[in-house]
Amino acid sequence: MAGFCIDQRRRFEGKVWAVVQPHSVEAVQKTVRYCYEQQIPLTPQGGNTSMCGGATPSDSVAGLGIIVSLSKLNRVREVNLADNCITVEAGRVLQQVQQDAAAVGRMFPLSLASEGSCQIGGNIACNAGGVNVVRYGPMRDLVMGLEVVLPNGDLLSHLSPLHKNTTGFDVKHALIGSEGTLGIITAATLKLFAPARTHVTAWVGVDSIDHAVALLELTQQHFAERLSSFELISDFALELSSQHTQLSQPLSAPWHVLLELTDSTDNTLLPEQLGECLLGAGFENAVLAESEQQREQLWSLRENISDAQRHLGASIKHDIAMPIRSVASFVHACAPVLQAAYPNAKIVVFGHLGDGSLHYNVFMPDVLSNDVYQYEAGMNALVYEQVFAVGGTVAAEHGIGQLKTKWMDKMRSGTELALMLAIKKQLDPNCLFNQGKVLPD
Amino acid sequence: MAGFCIDQRRRFEGKVWAVVQPHSVEAVQKTVRYCYEQQIPLTPQGGNTSMCGGATPSDSVAGLGIIVSLSKLNRVREVNLADNCITVEAGRVLQQVQQDAAAVGRMFPLSLASEGSCQIGGNIACNAGGVNVVRYGPMRDLVMGLEVVLPNGDLLSHLSPLHKNTTGFDVKHALIGSEGTLGIITAATLKLFAPARTHVTAWVGVDSIDHAVALLELTQQHFAERLSSFELISDFALELSSQHTQLSQPLSAPWHVLLELTDSTDNTLLPEQLGECLLGAGFENAVLAESEQQREQLWSLRENISDAQRHLGASIKHDIAMPIRSVASFVHACAPVLQAAYPNAKIVVFGHLGDGSLHYNVFMPDVLSNDVYQYEAGMNALVYEQVFAVGGTVAAEHGIGQLKTKWMDKMRSGTELALMLAIKKQLDPNCLFNQGKVLPD
Repeated sequence: MAGFCIDQRRRFEGKVWAVVQPHSVEAVQKTVRYCYEQQIPLTPQGGNTSMCGGATPSDSVAGLGIIVSLSKLNRVREVNLADNCITVEAGRVLQQVQQDAAAVGRMFPLSLASEGSCQIGGNIACNAGGVNVVRYGPMRDLVMGLEVVLPNGDLLSHLSPLHKNTTGFDVKHALIGSEGTLGIITAATLKLFAPARTHVTAWVGVDSIDHAVALLELTQQHFAERLSSFELISDFALELSSQHTQLSQPLSAPWHVLLELTDSTDNTLLPEQLGECLLGAGFENAVLAESEQQREQLWSLRENISDAQRHLGASIKHDIAMPIRSVASFVHACAPVLQAAYPNAKIVVFGHLGDGSLHYNVFMPDVLSNDVYQYEAGMNALVYEQVFAVGGTVAAEHGIGQLKTKWMDKMRSGTELALMLAIKKQLDPNCLFNQGKVLPD
Repeated sequence: MAGFCIDQRRRFEGKVWAVVQPHSVEAVQKTVRYCYEQQIPLTPQGGNTSMCGGATPSDSVAGLGIIVSLSKLNRVREVNLADNCITVEAGRVLQQVQQDAAAVGRMFPLSLASEGSCQIGGNIACNAGGVNVVRYGPMRDLVMGLEVVLPNGDLLSHLSPLHKNTTGFDVKHALIGSEGTLGIITAATLKLFAPARTHVTAWVGVDSIDHAVALLELTQQHFAERLSSFELISDFALELSSQHTQLSQPLSAPWHVLLELTDSTDNTLLPEQLGECLLGAGFENAVLAESEQQREQLWSLRENISDAQRHLGASIKHDIAMPIRSVASFVHACAPVLQAAYPNAKIVVFGHLGDGSLHYNVFMPDVLSNDVYQYEAGMNALVYEQVFAVGGTVAAEHGIGQLKTKWMDKMRSGTELALMLAIKKQLDPNCLFNQGKVLPD
């Protein structure tokens, strides 16, 4: 059972007396009803890829509980092209769902680093984000219907795809993002989209973050939903990646933007339209990928930043997002505060500017990997303070889990927390589901 | 006060001792706190365009209450192009918001018949739908942030645009669609989009509803989000509209589809691509609009169906939606049931096939306008039974209001209704907000 009890980053380890892997929804219900009657705490688990200890039992679990793993509940129930959707069970791996969509000439857009092992149920429970949010939104926006086993064993089933429906308070959205504290998601109906047949990729040098934001406004106004990626990269981050990959830098500039337009048609006009749009607005320091190979090289520079940095020292990471408009002021305010407290700290700034979420990685070149975490709490607190100052969030796409419960009251009011507790109490009166997660003690 | 107490269709009339029209959020809070202390029931009201009596006091209000009209709280707070959003107060009229967006080179896509008088706060409270849902989703999908005065007078304020954020159970979505029973929306941050520079409009004759659904699948796979309208029209509906408008029918077929692609760029390839796509898949009985005038004529045929029908007798309408895949079987099952019970009834079928919502209008040629409503309850019950049989909803885009509370338990389970009551009790323990609406007695 060891693999189920510890998270992938080996930072959270829990104890249970059993791991249950149901093959059917009925078996999930039977398990949950037994736990309800016997007052046994349970932790729902998908691919166990949480970055916040959301899927491993916490220390606060009263007595020994069980893990309910959804891995064996992983079938495709149905493809429905009329409604442009697919119904899959919770344990299906994200990458499989992407392949299921491709097999019927469609595309499922959620895409993130752990897609080869994370599961759809966990993605929904955590409202996962990833690289395509600028165009398609987070997981919440991709769910049409849910099937959920509630803490008393009742089955809530709304898998029927309704594109318009308003019948009382929305229960589906209360469950999405509740991280297994309100029920076990057993299946979901997910939206499908047309696949891309045209990709146009540009690397643009900009003078400042605000200059990059102006470019974002411009491309969204001209190309609408076609804007599929809009990545910001600091010159320092590019330098690290260029050295690491042995790929030359596409151009020199203080800040860099990697943007991509995609189109479901063979849109031969698009490269020229993008070129004209950039030149017309004075973004002359720019490169358009002329071949698939060149496109891959540009993306390789972006994707290797974390790897490049790993060679120089372990880093403290932050799952933060903020209004796009405020990214520049956050970056300018945060660096001096951090460097005053940690003079040796190096900051690597890059991320999805198109959705306001940043990788804000801090590393200490002189500190050995395992020792860097002694600084984590202190650095987090300094960074988070700056995030809150611009109306941002410190749980952009990884959820709260057991790592961030203490930050909840900085982001949600007392009235909201009281409402969350009332919802929790109504559905899970004995507080058996995923104890110690999401809600502050 | 009379205008505030009766709905636009003159079917629901309530009594109050005052109508309050606050000019500021503080004044809303002061009013609500007073009501909370004095236990005075209140009905929030926007443009008073509800089709279900949602904005007029119901008979079930215990004693006399007040109406809080948001009409005077109607400013634009802020335009934020970096985040592609606008923050407006609840009383702003929908059409004004569309114009606010156009003034900054953007587009706000919610569009519906009452847009000249309905207000944004009401649109959010009812999760309004309209004609652009196939591409942009309902109001729920267009809201980035909310400011709400809760029943105890507390202000819940999350107007900051966060594109990624998961911090506990989603309170915003509980409020959207709650129809004024959980709080008074005072402002909202709304998504903006790129305006269309290219329109390609086609009228396609199809053999059956399933044939129309195949066309929908085809266009969504090829043209993705560009598909902005996909309207189904029965031959009978077209005949009525053609006679009424004196416009000739574009082609002969048992069923008709009016579809439109829009594009934010000058996409000169699009008409030919659509033509090839239609021909390639055997949709040869089709007309592409060659001019703006021809486009307007095609739309005029669609938009005049209701008017054409009004001349022949008052009709019983249904706000229904269902999985797109099931529209054909619903239409085939419902007509014989209705005609068995009401042999003279004429059924006019048309609607937004692209989002599964149908106008299913029934009229009795021999029955005078004011007399037709004696058949409403009976016809509704027959139609709704068929809707439920295919997993549909009888509150697609108008909400529940006071008209449809008795149907709630056909669409929501006992567990869900209990959860809704718990949420209601937590936020509004004295049940003062919009009594008699949404939740069944």
